[in-house]
Amino acid sequence: MSLMKSWVASANDANHPFPLNNLPYGVFSTDGTDPRCGVAIGDMILDMEAVEGEGLVQLADYPLFDVPFWNEMMEQGPAVWAALRDRLTALLADGSAEKAKVEPFLVAAADVELHLPMVVAEYTDFYAGMQHAKNMGAILRGSPDLPANWLHIPIGYNGRASSVVVSGTAIHRPNGQTKAPDADMPSFGPTKRLDIELEMGAIVGTGSEFGQPITVDEADAMIFGYVLLNDWSARDIQGWEYQPLGPFQGKAFGTSISPWIVTAAALESFRAPTPPREKELLPYLNGSKDGLYDIELEVLMQPEGAATATSVSKTNYNRMYYSAAEQLCHHAIGGCEMTTGDLLGSGTISGADRSEYGSLMELSWAGREPFTLDTGETRGFIEDGDTLTLRGNARGDGFTIGFGDCTGKILPAVTWPAKD
Amino acid sequence: MSLMKSWVASANDANHPFPLNNLPYGVFSTDGTDPRCGVAIGDMILDMEAVEGEGLVQLADYPLFDVPFWNEMMEQGPAVWAALRDRLTALLADGSAEKAKVEPFLVAAADVELHLPMVVAEYTDFYAGMQHAKNMGAILRGSPDLPANWLHIPIGYNGRASSVVVSGTAIHRPNGQTKAPDADMPSFGPTKRLDIELEMGAIVGTGSEFGQPITVDEADAMIFGYVLLNDWSARDIQGWEYQPLGPFQGKAFGTSISPWIVTAAALESFRAPTPPREKELLPYLNGSKDGLYDIELEVLMQPEGAATATSVSKTNYNRMYYSAAEQLCHHAIGGCEMTTGDLLGSGTISGADRSEYGSLMELSWAGREPFTLDTGETRGFIEDGDTLTLRGNARGDGFTIGFGDCTGKILPAVTWPAKD
Repeated sequence: MSLMKSWVASANDANHPFPLNNLPYGVFSTDGTDPRCGVAIGDMILDMEAVEGEGLVQLADYPLFDVPFWNEMMEQGPAVWAALRDRLTALLADGSAEKAKVEPFLVAAADVELHLPMVVAEYTDFYAGMQHAKNMGAILRGSPDLPANWLHIPIGYNGRASSVVVSGTAIHRPNGQTKAPDADMPSFGPTKRLDIELEMGAIVGTGSEFGQPITVDEADAMIFGYVLLNDWSARDIQGWEYQPLGPFQGKAFGTSISPWIVTAAALESFRAPTPPREKELLPYLNGSKDGLYDIELEVLMQPEGAATATSVSKTNYNRMYYSAAEQLCHHAIGGCEMTTGDLLGSGTISGADRSEYGSLMELSWAGREPFTLDTGETRGFIEDGDTLTLRGNARGDGFTIGFGDCTGKILPAVTWPAKD
Repeated sequence: MSLMKSWVASANDANHPFPLNNLPYGVFSTDGTDPRCGVAIGDMILDMEAVEGEGLVQLADYPLFDVPFWNEMMEQGPAVWAALRDRLTALLADGSAEKAKVEPFLVAAADVELHLPMVVAEYTDFYAGMQHAKNMGAILRGSPDLPANWLHIPIGYNGRASSVVVSGTAIHRPNGQTKAPDADMPSFGPTKRLDIELEMGAIVGTGSEFGQPITVDEADAMIFGYVLLNDWSARDIQGWEYQPLGPFQGKAFGTSISPWIVTAAALESFRAPTPPREKELLPYLNGSKDGLYDIELEVLMQPEGAATATSVSKTNYNRMYYSAAEQLCHHAIGGCEMTTGDLLGSGTISGADRSEYGSLMELSWAGREPFTLDTGETRGFIEDGDTLTLRGNARGDGFTIGFGDCTGKILPAVTWPAKD
C-alpha cells in the first residue's frame, strides 16, 4: 500500500501521523463547545457531529457522533465500521466532488482539546512480552525463568477502568503502603519507585455473550482499534501488595492512553506474526491470522525545565509473544462477557536489547544502573516534574500510521492525611 | 430498636425479611412492563416510578426512579438517601394518612421479575476473612500462616463487573485451562472443582475524586448499602492461572448478588466491631465507627430433583477482619477514583468451626472429606444441576432485616469448540 492522497494538504506528508490511510477516531472540543466525535486528517479534525448533521455521513437511524465517545459507533459492528471508513475516504480523498461541502467542518487540531475517545467499559492488563517477563523474573526473583503457566496462558489481570485517562492528564505520585525487605513493619508514603510500562491497548468494538466463549478469529474481528497505553506503576507498592492476588494499588492511580483510536482497518497491512511457539498452545488459542502489528514504539523522558526530551527506549509491538486476539479469546473462554469499550493492555513491550526495554525498572535494572538523560541528569525511576511520552508509528510506503503522543507529567504526591 | 409497624400487614411478621425497618431497594418488572425501581415492603413491592410520577415522592428536579437501576438515586448523596428513607417510612407506616394514595402502587412480589438493582460500575473482590485465608493456606500451601502482608493490607483484586448477575440467573460450568500437578502440559475442559464463596457486597453510593485519597470515615459514609454475593470460583482453573498476577478466568464466569440493596441506614443498629488488631494498622486505616454488621449468614445446597435444600454452613458477617469502609479507604489511598455503583466483595466469610466455613473448598477440605446432604448424596464440589443459595438476616427485637435469597443453579459446560 502507498500513500492515499487527500485534499487536506498536510495529510500528504510521508511522516505525518494522520494521512488519509489512517483516519483515527477521537473526541474533541473547542472553546465553549461540548466534546464530540472527530476524525484526524493531517493537521485538521473533521467534526463528525456536524458532518452527520449535514447528512454527509449517515450510518444509523439516529445520531452516532454527537456524543463524547465512540462506543455507539463501535456497537454497530464491522459492516458499519467499514462503511464509515469507505465514506470518510471518499469525502476526504484528493479530487473528491464533496470537498466544498466537507471543508467547513474541519477544525484546526491546534485549537482543540482532546478527551478520552471512548467510555472504558472495563480494563484488563496482560503480561504478554517474554523479554519483560524474563527481566522482571531476573530482577525480582533472581532468575529469568518464566512462570510455569506463561507459555500456555496469555496471563492477564483485571485493572481499574476509572484509572484510564487521556494523554496530557497529569498524574500525582501515589501514596501507599510499602515495606523494605529488612523492616519489621510497612510504612506509608509516596512511592519511591514510580515507573511506566510501554504497552499497546486493544479496544473491544463488539461484545460477546454471557456464558459463551469465542474463537481467536472471532476475537480478532471484535477488535475495533488500538491506542498507545502507559500502565503507570508504583513498583514498591506493587511489590508489597501483589502476593497472592495480584497488582492493585500499585497500578490504580493512572493509566494513560493516546487520544486517537487507530482502527484495525488502518493497521491491516502492518500485521505481523507472533513468534514460533516454544510450547504448543492448546487448540482454543489458535487463530488463522497474524495477530501482531509492525508498529515502531519509542519512550521519551523530559525533566521539568529541560528543553528537550530524551529518547530512552525504542522497540516494536511485533516483539510480543501473544496477540490481542489471543488475549481476548482467552478472556472469554470461561464465559466472561466482553463489552463494547473494553480496553486490553498488551503487557509491557520489551525487545531483546536493553535499549528496547519498555519500563524504567528494566532500563535501570531496578535502579541499580541508572541511565543518563541528554541534560546530564540520571534516572533510576521517575522524579516529580518528569514528563513521560510514548510514541508509535507504523511505516508504510511513503506514509505513516501514527498514534499521536501518549504523554503524562508526574506531580508531587498529595499531602495525606490532609492538613486542615 | 423494635419493629416499626406498617399498614402492609405482611411486613409486620417478626421473621419477614422486609419490614418497614428494612425498605430495601431493587429493580422489578411485571409482564409487559419495563424494569424500574421498587421498594420491598412485606410481600409487596412499591412501584417507585409510579409513586414519583404521582408526586408522592419528589427528591430531584427530574425523575430518579423510571430507570432500571438505582445509580441516579445513589449519586444524589447521603442527605437525599435519608430524605427518601424518611418519606417512605412516613408513607408506609401504620396509620399513614396517605395510605389510600399509596396503596394502588403496590405490586405483589410474587408477580414480578427482579433484575440487577444497579449498574455495576466496577467490581473489586477482597480477601478479608482470616479463617478463610488460613484455611486456603493450609489446603493449598500446607500451612495456615497468613501471607506476610495480610495483617497490614485489606488485600483485594479487581474483578470483572460483567460477571455480576442477579440472583436466579443460571451459570454454566466454565471451561478453561487446568494442569494436574504431575502432568507435563495443561489441558482444556470443564472445571472439576466448581465452588462458591459466601460474601457480602458493599455498594459505593457516592464516588471519590481522581488522584485524591479518602479516610475510613469518609468511605463509611460513601457506602449506600449491602447485598449478599456469591463469588463463584473454579478452583482448578484459578490454581493454574493465579501466579503471578492473581485470579482471572477462575472467577470471571459469574458473580451472583441478591436482588435487594439493603441500605446502610437499615443496618445501622446492627453495627459490629472488627476484632482486635493482631498487628497495629497504619494510621490511614483507622476509622471511628464499628465497620462490620451482625448479619447471620447461611449456605444451602440442593441437588437437581431434591425436594429440599440442605444447610451446609452457618456463619456471620461479624467474623471478618476488615470492614468494607477500611477496604474502600485502601482502594482509593493511591488516588484511584471510586464511582457510584462500584461493588466491593468482602472476601469469603468463614467462622472458626468447619460448620461456619464459607466455601465448599473449605467445607470438604479440597474434596478430600466430602460432606453429606439430606438426600444422602455426598459433595466435594458442585455438580451439574445443583442449586446454591446464600441467605442473610440481621435479627432485631421482633423484626428481621433480610436480604432475599442469592441463588444460582449450575448448568453443564457449553460444548467447545462448538459443534456445527
